[in-house]
Amino acid sequence: MTDYRRLRVALLGAGAVGSQVAALLRQHSAELADRAGAVLELVGIAVRDLDAPRETDLPRELFTTDAETLIVGSDIVIELMGGIEPARSYLLQAINSGADVVTANKALLATHGPEIFDAADQVGAEVYYEAAAAGAIPIIRPLRDSLAGDRVQRIMGIVNGTTNYILDRMDKEGAEFADVLADAQALGYAEADPTADVEGYDAAQKAAILASLAFHTAVPLDAVHREGITGIDKGMMDAARKAGYVIKLLAVCERLTGEAEASASGEAISVRVYPALVSREHPLASVHGANNAVFVQAEAAGNLMFYGAGAGGVQTASAVLGDVVSAARRHIAGGVGVGESTLANLPVVPIGRVTTSYQITLEVDDQPGVLATVAGILSEGRVSIATLEQTVIDDPAPGAADGGAARLVIGTHKAREQDLSDTVDRLAASGVVERVVSVLRVEGD
Amino acid sequence: MTDYRRLRVALLGAGAVGSQVAALLRQHSAELADRAGAVLELVGIAVRDLDAPRETDLPRELFTTDAETLIVGSDIVIELMGGIEPARSYLLQAINSGADVVTANKALLATHGPEIFDAADQVGAEVYYEAAAAGAIPIIRPLRDSLAGDRVQRIMGIVNGTTNYILDRMDKEGAEFADVLADAQALGYAEADPTADVEGYDAAQKAAILASLAFHTAVPLDAVHREGITGIDKGMMDAARKAGYVIKLLAVCERLTGEAEASASGEAISVRVYPALVSREHPLASVHGANNAVFVQAEAAGNLMFYGAGAGGVQTASAVLGDVVSAARRHIAGGVGVGESTLANLPVVPIGRVTTSYQITLEVDDQPGVLATVAGILSEGRVSIATLEQTVIDDPAPGAADGGAARLVIGTHKAREQDLSDTVDRLAASGVVERVVSVLRVEGD
Repeated sequence: MTDYRRLRVALLGAGAVGSQVAALLRQHSAELADRAGAVLELVGIAVRDLDAPRETDLPRELFTTDAETLIVGSDIVIELMGGIEPARSYLLQAINSGADVVTANKALLATHGPEIFDAADQVGAEVYYEAAAAGAIPIIRPLRDSLAGDRVQRIMGIVNGTTNYILDRMDKEGAEFADVLADAQALGYAEADPTADVEGYDAAQKAAILASLAFHTAVPLDAVHREGITGIDKGMMDAARKAGYVIKLLAVCERLTGEAEASASGEAISVRVYPALVSREHPLASVHGANNAVFVQAEAAGNLMFYGAGAGGVQTASAVLGDVVSAARRHIAGGVGVGESTLANLPVVPIGRVTTSYQITLEVDDQPGVLATVAGILSEGRVSIATLEQTVIDDPAPGAADGGAARLVIGTHKAREQDLSDTVDRLAASGVVERVVSVLRVEGD
Repeated sequence: MTDYRRLRVALLGAGAVGSQVAALLRQHSAELADRAGAVLELVGIAVRDLDAPRETDLPRELFTTDAETLIVGSDIVIELMGGIEPARSYLLQAINSGADVVTANKALLATHGPEIFDAADQVGAEVYYEAAAAGAIPIIRPLRDSLAGDRVQRIMGIVNGTTNYILDRMDKEGAEFADVLADAQALGYAEADPTADVEGYDAAQKAAILASLAFHTAVPLDAVHREGITGIDKGMMDAARKAGYVIKLLAVCERLTGEAEASASGEAISVRVYPALVSREHPLASVHGANNAVFVQAEAAGNLMFYGAGAGGVQTASAVLGDVVSAARRHIAGGVGVGESTLANLPVVPIGRVTTSYQITLEVDDQPGVLATVAGILSEGRVSIATLEQTVIDDPAPGAADGGAARLVIGTHKAREQDLSDTVDRLAASGVVERVVSVLRVEGD
């Protein structure tokens, strides 16, 4: 090891991921030096509270509350604090003082990515963020480097472990959302306040990062359409299963063509997070438990899938350390940072312009002529029926006509979201529909 | 595009992959320039025969038979000729003349990798070979970069599309190997001479490349244990299915510990290609058709899987172009090549030292005491029985004892390969075993 140059590594944050990164940096120092071509010397760990209890045996003298002084003179700064501030200020300070930076901060990148990448470009530094998009799954390098000569058409990602755990158990056990959520909280798979996961905020941040990278476009977080899974119930799960589908919370990033209003080339993108029906034959359907997977369709490469643990302290630490080794190699090799490639800056279209197929479940009066009325409304709304199943139900909604009620499950051909939602509004107001039970998009067919 | 520097790109070979690479380089030149930060100018294509028919509309003046002159003055050389010579000489010439090189040549890397990487290190050039290990699936960057801070424990890869196609159809259709092979040849999924695929030579080359990268060790091709799939028949497939398994041709690269005879640290590796039983619950079991997948177990990252098309001209061209963009970015950024990290050079142990579990299928005399004899031989051989199923068979092998014959399917606990094969030899010679029907390893449990 004595032949290697020493690089000063500063760590900001000592939570679940940070403490694992620190431990692995020390534990595997000889091997990491061989990989990086440099000794990675952990010079300090900035934390908010020196006296907070820690589950590590790291030397106390490494800890400091003075992040700014720690950053000065560091070659590599690892930011694992999370949140926007002071993480943003520290990252910018690190970049401007000549360090390469590694971060797993998806909230920061999804909201301030362009500012941070621009700052790095200005000084020839590099920003590494493999752990920000899908935990331990290597997806950043494949998108940025391996597919750099290809054109990504579409990404469908299961990028939130908590919601996949919940949906997977609902599917397997026929349980209700609230029961599985409570159990997931008890087991530590879901936070006490599960909003960021179950409402899709976490997935939306990751979708913004993946889409930015895949389409060479700065995707602002508020351009990501977001729906959570709190409305998914046992009935929808059962119906999905019966129809050969499973419900997954998907982050969909899609390249659209023919969008002449949006751009001169007619190209635009859509970035959206919602629960969707996925065929049980699709590789994403077999992603179980808290695992994540990113399915990528590229023009030349065809279909690819990247699968693994989406979260977890030690798993995410693996991705962070891979970035640290890359940053060190770059420091040793010299040269300026490669930076992000020139942006294509495709416009992001609103959800109304997206085209998918749908499964619409309705409760209707079981009377002659009802089907004709429903079919007529769909046809007027430019929504074409692919499959239709009608079943008589024994427990009609209160207020159903005396003739009894029936359930209609309509699978549509591809339709534009705006047309579809207008049509569903008209169905609801038509007088023959007692209740719109559910409207779910179908992805990946 | 006018602001970009021009980089001269030379292409060696215009086969299925090469012609796609040339076409995409020209077709997507503006986008590739944005990605690379440089105009990628295809200055020539070296071929053996100028008059050979080509399925492309590439300008005739690009073609030349003089590869050596073409290489001179090129910034990036793409080698897609295949074979050892003259590919090796051209690559070395390119490296020594200051070019970065991209190759998809697995045979060359598996046999002359160290020579080529050393030559690149000497001059600070870089060798890119994403397309050499699993076609379009990004696996090289994840192993080299994303997992550089982790320790890979084991890789199990389905890295040959032809054999996966054959085994998948045998599994689904209950067909015999020879029939499916003939059909695969007619459909273009298998070559007229299928030896390289069905005997595992292609997979062994890829295994050597993957193991070299994962374990930072130069793995010579002849250290890879190799068995093909020609001995797999319908009976084995049926038995596997019945037991909850599927048979896949796997490339297994494994880190072993406790090998004190092999190395001071006790660490060693095993690299092997053979048909193995894989649980139907394992993610590799759902890799169908000609698709490939690489399942990686790493100490911190846990289980990862990379899935996609393992071959195909345009799919492989995607991986090659990603490498070309990376090479261009490096050329623009300056700095010396990162090169391979310091080798750990772990010893590769012979197959006899490998530990797996096994499924042994025997035809035995259906007589009292036979089971005790078999169990005794296994126990003496340090092979421990996990499961055992005995069925009477109606069509005993000729020469079976008058009492009839039975089939024994024995699932073992983990055992050392040498112990296992010695034990099977003793069983075969025991007098109570009429026929050793099959011995298959079980992987991934």
